Amino acid sequence: MFKTILSNLKEKSPLIHCITNYVTVNDCANILLACGASPIMADDSKEVEDITSICNGLTINIGTINNNLILSMILAGKKANQLNHPVVFDPVGAGASNFRNQASDKLLKEINFKVIRGNISEIKSLALGDFATKGVDANILDKVSEKNLDKVIDFAKEFSKKTNAIIAITGEIDLIVDSKRVCIVKNGHKMMSEITGSGCMLSVLISAMVSANLDKAFEATVGAVCSIGLAGEMAYKRLKEKEGNLSYRNYLIDQIYNLTDDILMNGAKYELR
Amino acid sequence: MFKTILSNLKEKSPLIHCITNYVTVNDCANILLACGASPIMADDSKEVEDITSICNGLTINIGTINNNLILSMILAGKKANQLNHPVVFDPVGAGASNFRNQASDKLLKEINFKVIRGNISEIKSLALGDFATKGVDANILDKVSEKNLDKVIDFAKEFSKKTNAIIAITGEIDLIVDSKRVCIVKNGHKMMSEITGSGCMLSVLISAMVSANLDKAFEATVGAVCSIGLAGEMAYKRLKEKEGNLSYRNYLIDQIYNLTDDILMNGAKYELR
Amino acid sequence: MFKTILSNLKEKSPLIHCITNYVTVNDCANILLACGASPIMADDSKEVEDITSICNGLTINIGTINNNLILSMILAGKKANQLNHPVVFDPVGAGASNFRNQASDKLLKEINFKVIRGNISEIKSLALGDFATKGVDANILDKVSEKNLDKVIDFAKEFSKKTNAIIAITGEIDLIVDSKRVCIVKNGHKMMSEITGSGCMLSVLISAMVSANLDKAFEATVGAVCSIGLAGEMAYKRLKEKEGNLSYRNYLIDQIYNLTDDILMNGAKYELR
Repeated sequence: MFKTILSNLKEKSPLIHCITNYVTVNDCANILLACGASPIMADDSKEVEDITSICNGLTINIGTINNNLILSMILAGKKANQLNHPVVFDPVGAGASNFRNQASDKLLKEINFKVIRGNISEIKSLALGDFATKGVDANILDKVSEKNLDKVIDFAKEFSKKTNAIIAITGEIDLIVDSKRVCIVKNGHKMMSEITGSGCMLSVLISAMVSANLDKAFEATVGAVCSIGLAGEMAYKRLKEKEGNLSYRNYLIDQIYNLTDDILMNGAKYELR
Repeated sequence: MFKTILSNLKEKSPLIHCITNYVTVNDCANILLACGASPIMADDSKEVEDITSICNGLTINIGTINNNLILSMILAGKKANQLNHPVVFDPVGAGASNFRNQASDKLLKEINFKVIRGNISEIKSLALGDFATKGVDANILDKVSEKNLDKVIDFAKEFSKKTNAIIAITGEIDLIVDSKRVCIVKNGHKMMSEITGSGCMLSVLISAMVSANLDKAFEATVGAVCSIGLAGEMAYKRLKEKEGNLSYRNYLIDQIYNLTDDILMNGAKYELR
Repeated sequence: MFKTILSNLKEKSPLIHCITNYVTVNDCANILLACGASPIMADDSKEVEDITSICNGLTINIGTINNNLILSMILAGKKANQLNHPVVFDPVGAGASNFRNQASDKLLKEINFKVIRGNISEIKSLALGDFATKGVDANILDKVSEKNLDKVIDFAKEFSKKTNAIIAITGEIDLIVDSKRVCIVKNGHKMMSEITGSGCMLSVLISAMVSANLDKAFEATVGAVCSIGLAGEMAYKRLKEKEGNLSYRNYLIDQIYNLTDDILMNGAKYELR
């Protein structure tokens, strides 16, 4: 499945425009460089169209959203759509405030996303918004387990049809779904939730993988999810006595830097349904 | 004194809303995760009330302040006060500009802070502002030493009465004071001043500790000050040849990640007066 | 050439005001502390004049530029000029958007820069702007090599005369030029391009070195370029198996922390022409 997903990325070295939060932006830039892509962060409405035009992909992350950023995201997103650049949406904290819900809703209406990645509660919040409310059953728990997995898959499929995007719901169990395909990923380590930015970093990694593998966007998304999960496992193994979450964050990015097609193919734990 | 301050925190895992500067925000998020709390950074005036409502505590840090942020800080602070969430104030750089002094003054007038933490010159600047100018003798040096300690304690007590907040003045000697109690902390290492953010990180740590120990806010503040100081000492011991301040920063957060009630109780160097 | 450039810096410990991007700002603060200087980041137009007045130098970096920041940069830059504080300009991404070009142009018109540092395409973009367009031949390649070196030197000299600034063009080969002198630096490692912020960090390092060596601004700039290049070489040597770009970033700053006059003098590879 991943035969050359990563080596394509390294060969093409896509330039990824990120309109993202100021909390994890440095980690996002460094993980893009780690995987073989290049980052550009630019968020002023007067330049985002120019910037995204010279890029290969766009990531929109609402972690520290404000009105100026919403405008910039829409302008950049529309321009990227026009140019057929894949746009990845990370709805950080959707559900935590009305403002964030409205922002997400607006972005979903104005931009065609190639991939939407969030945890189950964030994706549920999007699905419950004005945009997708009709016809999507989001009456599911806020945690994905073996028990409710089928229900979550149905929900994600519906949301994928509604948005025409690949939906990646990540957590203990990761789920990648489009209108037809379903992939469950079981890579990862619980320590990934003890650093800030593992979700944000995954989203830019998806951007990079998809931008370099446009004809295999689903596989590339699965590849990105497996990659960060595998890096999370390997980073944990590298942790020595007295080391904690900051060392873990450093190792996680280091592992992405050292990832190869072979390591990914051997370490990926996924199941197509 | 700290018997279960830290384990309470780990058990309750409070969610801390931070309106803070973009320089050290990533470190603040990671140290909150390291100690067992969770961070949310959100600063748009249209959502800060919503966000702070789902949290257990709020930290306000003026490191890279601007007018938009002042509004958001006041809205979030008032909402947190209403909900009885503890609010911690870190007046970074107070005294360095009129704008920063006026901002601090406004925040002191509008918000009831549970804890105010800064270095001696920042706290002096607050005390000299319109808010607290009457009745507070800030005619003290800009460095706390054994010589002027009694004078600084009197000053801090007065400022605590004026603000109804616990005052934490940190530096070579750390001082935690409320209207009645005084605690002097001698943990710490001078290398903490060779990284950015050790003060900001302490402030969010105080937020986390106090939010999880509401009935023991004074003890929790002392616990946080001892914790970061102790972590600073242990981080220094971990430093190997050729390592410098970046490794030190990583170790500091790692040490907070590995801190336990026992380590804290055995390593804390404080004196109640 | 560098006899006491670094020890002067450590002795004077200049305070550097940075108006910079939110991607690499933490690294910039930590590398300033690593070299012996101190950082202040402040960007609101209502305080930047106050802030820059208490500093010894100013760095302006347009990495995540917006209209508010341009105003603040101009106010701070003019005030620094008035006080004879050296101002360093890092035109990150100049050429990537019209907005960024116009911003750069405005800054060049309003502020007298002591040093302008960028890669060859950024410096070319500045030279092609309204400000410097007449009389500067920027018809050169986007990469500096032994083949086009003489042409690039001529271009840089002309641009230096036009701006009255020291021009530092960095890349595989680094070039430091003023109206009379030319220095070529061959320190550095290609892995420096696999982390975010190595350029931004160099610019604040130049600020620190120049602020502490006002009468030797050219030598100080060369010293800063050699320092980061040498740190980049030494950081690479420290890399162990499984380590990647994040560890490399940490080591780079660590090496600056451990740099001495002797290490710099022995390791610097430069050639005066």
